[in-house]
Amino acid sequence: MTDTKITLKESEIPTRWYNVQADMPEPLEPYLNPGTKEPVTPEDLQPIFPGALIEQEVSRDRWVTIPEEVRDIYKTWRPSPLYRAKNLEEELETPAKIFYKWEGVSPPGSHKPNTSVAQAYYNREAGIERLATETGAGQWGSALSYAGTHFDLDISVYMVKVSYEQKPYRRIMMETWGAEVTPSPSEKTQAGRKLLERDPDTTGSLGIAISEAVEDAATRDDTNYSLGSVLNHVALHQTVIGLEAKKQLDKVGEYPDVVYGNVGGGSNFAGIAFPFVNDRFDGEDVEIVCCEPTACPTLTKGLFRYDFGDTAMMTPLMPMYTLGHDFVPPAIHAGGLRYHGDSPLVSKLYHDGHLSAEAFYQNPVFEAAELFAHTEGHIVAPEAAHAVKGGIDQAKRCARTGEEKTILIGNSGHGHFDLAAYDEYHQGNLVDYEYPEELVKESMEKLPEV
Amino acid sequence: MTDTKITLKESEIPTRWYNVQADMPEPLEPYLNPGTKEPVTPEDLQPIFPGALIEQEVSRDRWVTIPEEVRDIYKTWRPSPLYRAKNLEEELETPAKIFYKWEGVSPPGSHKPNTSVAQAYYNREAGIERLATETGAGQWGSALSYAGTHFDLDISVYMVKVSYEQKPYRRIMMETWGAEVTPSPSEKTQAGRKLLERDPDTTGSLGIAISEAVEDAATRDDTNYSLGSVLNHVALHQTVIGLEAKKQLDKVGEYPDVVYGNVGGGSNFAGIAFPFVNDRFDGEDVEIVCCEPTACPTLTKGLFRYDFGDTAMMTPLMPMYTLGHDFVPPAIHAGGLRYHGDSPLVSKLYHDGHLSAEAFYQNPVFEAAELFAHTEGHIVAPEAAHAVKGGIDQAKRCARTGEEKTILIGNSGHGHFDLAAYDEYHQGNLVDYEYPEELVKESMEKLPEV
Repeated sequence: MTDTKITLKESEIPTRWYNVQADMPEPLEPYLNPGTKEPVTPEDLQPIFPGALIEQEVSRDRWVTIPEEVRDIYKTWRPSPLYRAKNLEEELETPAKIFYKWEGVSPPGSHKPNTSVAQAYYNREAGIERLATETGAGQWGSALSYAGTHFDLDISVYMVKVSYEQKPYRRIMMETWGAEVTPSPSEKTQAGRKLLERDPDTTGSLGIAISEAVEDAATRDDTNYSLGSVLNHVALHQTVIGLEAKKQLDKVGEYPDVVYGNVGGGSNFAGIAFPFVNDRFDGEDVEIVCCEPTACPTLTKGLFRYDFGDTAMMTPLMPMYTLGHDFVPPAIHAGGLRYHGDSPLVSKLYHDGHLSAEAFYQNPVFEAAELFAHTEGHIVAPEAAHAVKGGIDQAKRCARTGEEKTILIGNSGHGHFDLAAYDEYHQGNLVDYEYPEELVKESMEKLPEV
Repeated sequence: MTDTKITLKESEIPTRWYNVQADMPEPLEPYLNPGTKEPVTPEDLQPIFPGALIEQEVSRDRWVTIPEEVRDIYKTWRPSPLYRAKNLEEELETPAKIFYKWEGVSPPGSHKPNTSVAQAYYNREAGIERLATETGAGQWGSALSYAGTHFDLDISVYMVKVSYEQKPYRRIMMETWGAEVTPSPSEKTQAGRKLLERDPDTTGSLGIAISEAVEDAATRDDTNYSLGSVLNHVALHQTVIGLEAKKQLDKVGEYPDVVYGNVGGGSNFAGIAFPFVNDRFDGEDVEIVCCEPTACPTLTKGLFRYDFGDTAMMTPLMPMYTLGHDFVPPAIHAGGLRYHGDSPLVSKLYHDGHLSAEAFYQNPVFEAAELFAHTEGHIVAPEAAHAVKGGIDQAKRCARTGEEKTILIGNSGHGHFDLAAYDEYHQGNLVDYEYPEELVKESMEKLPEV
């Protein structure tokens, strides 16, 4: 009988990250300067990123060595456990085998520190003393705050004002790790002051918080900017998840027929999926499914275009699936899945047919999460619940067809700070929102020509 | 070099709990019926507890086999990791070695499910379909709710009204695992109705919540009562913690010179400590320290007497250290350490000189917790922070004296639902309260004569 948790020794934590850019049949299109429409150069990025991360962003080396100091901090929670979801299988009366990789064991409670620790390390190595970033509900801000303590970096987090006021727990978590948390928009930046002058009562947005963090980093020599998803180097750092999962499955003689991961900006998905994408390139027959909300259906309804990474149109243009940078996310509870775009790498791989995608309504997603809590015990984040929903649906199909598939779910984190969302679900207050196709078309017309 | 985490295989989860009653030089005095002052009989307890747990309460067998079904559920989070606190050691520049056993990995986030799962199992085996219990801030209620899902038991939790209203997250967690949570006092019980008639605006207390849960259990055939601390069978189930810790230390060739655990009702302390108490009885030179708040200094200022387990004077009389059952705890943030008494077993062992005790002020406890968060990453519960404080103080003494002691800290859980307390600490709002000796004396005069 398989153990409930398939574990690895600390010595089995991967020593290298996997760079999917090395193996993509078609290379990624370059980021473009929105003014000149010319490819962005490393020099363009130097004011806000350290050289090592800029190199990783465009590297085509297959393997990137994980610095020993980073691996040492990973050991606080890595290798993360891979679970055989025996109780869930039994409840579903499915012949499928369900495994899930559980990133909820990290101190900030999600997969995010896999990259925040790496980013903090490279910035410290480059002589940077301070990092600025933005955060919505606080998941990424707390991961970077956690990383900052280990490298004696000051962390400055611009937190969307409405979350700052309504979700104090994540703020306090960041402050406990020593970060300075500023409700955004703030008086600290030109971007913030300008907006406050125009609209003193604004509750903020991720777009304006990004603008403030980038300005903070660009205008101070000791400060860089740090981003928690979307970019290639972020996806790279997360591959430690999938690399471990492969080793763990291998220990019990298993290989997945199908892999589920939720996609917001794409970093969690890249983490669980890219090592299996590598196998697909080598001819392995593995299906890899992006799980997203119907309320923000970037892959299933968006288009593959050049678009800005932010609503304020400050970033380079990136080739990605997008709903349009002016997309206003409905108030669904999977805060991390409300981004208008997707990681260029995930987008490209999906566009070229290496990935598939499914979108789920909110209520069935919480129903799946609750079934998971009742059987496997863990109360997962609403984001992670999308992948759980994908896996459960597959297992149910197997129950009908008799197929004995092996299912792998990337389970990105716990829902301890999302319990209000579970309460809304229990009260029957969640709306099953579907983003209308017409709005996508309208938004596409506003995209810059390249 | 030692790993950061010393882990065990699932097959190394202990197969038996350790019963310290087998080895105590002097047996525990019996519980007394408060009316007759005669020892409580098993029959007295049958309306609310299953036979197996009543047997464990008085058993003097050294080892009690852990049922296979219970061990299977333990595997969701056990064996829990033992950490070598390398970063903390470095920060303190201490020659001491610091290890901590981390129970925060369980789905409810603390050590509590070690016993809730066992209690749910024995009740289900006895044909019970429903369990009633009380909870303050919600730690125990969520552990029992979690256990209930695994044995198809309905769980009814009476939650102190002020917590029900002010701390919704724990309530929602319980409801997500399917429990029914009732703010106490309620209209559901005679005890609740009586109190509401007298004082309709009461915010409740643990005392009245206990009364309601016991009444619920005593008046329904399908329902038993479940208690999360204090009693001998609860302490027994928790010993899985210390038994694992011993194996883990053994793997790296270590044995503690001193063990720290926080004491509220005593179950967490029993868990980490009793297996080492066993070694003391066998002549091992290990110091074992109870850590408690100065605001509720049960061991350091209370007296060893027969007292009621609850403020409502409904329970049997128990031989224990107590501040008096009319003790009104000051509003400190370590909610689990505000109990007026202590486990009779912990009390007896302390009284007979096998344990020592230290009391700590609130602010230095949070200072220690914050240092721990900055070095080891984990944000611990305020209760657990007391043991962390004890361990850090010891390590600092070693830094001064040069002693190379091995320190073991029982770290009972995470503080994800206690972040408001950290915020109060950051704001400088925490009071370093010391419970006055005179009040203890006054309370002692009200104790029943036996």
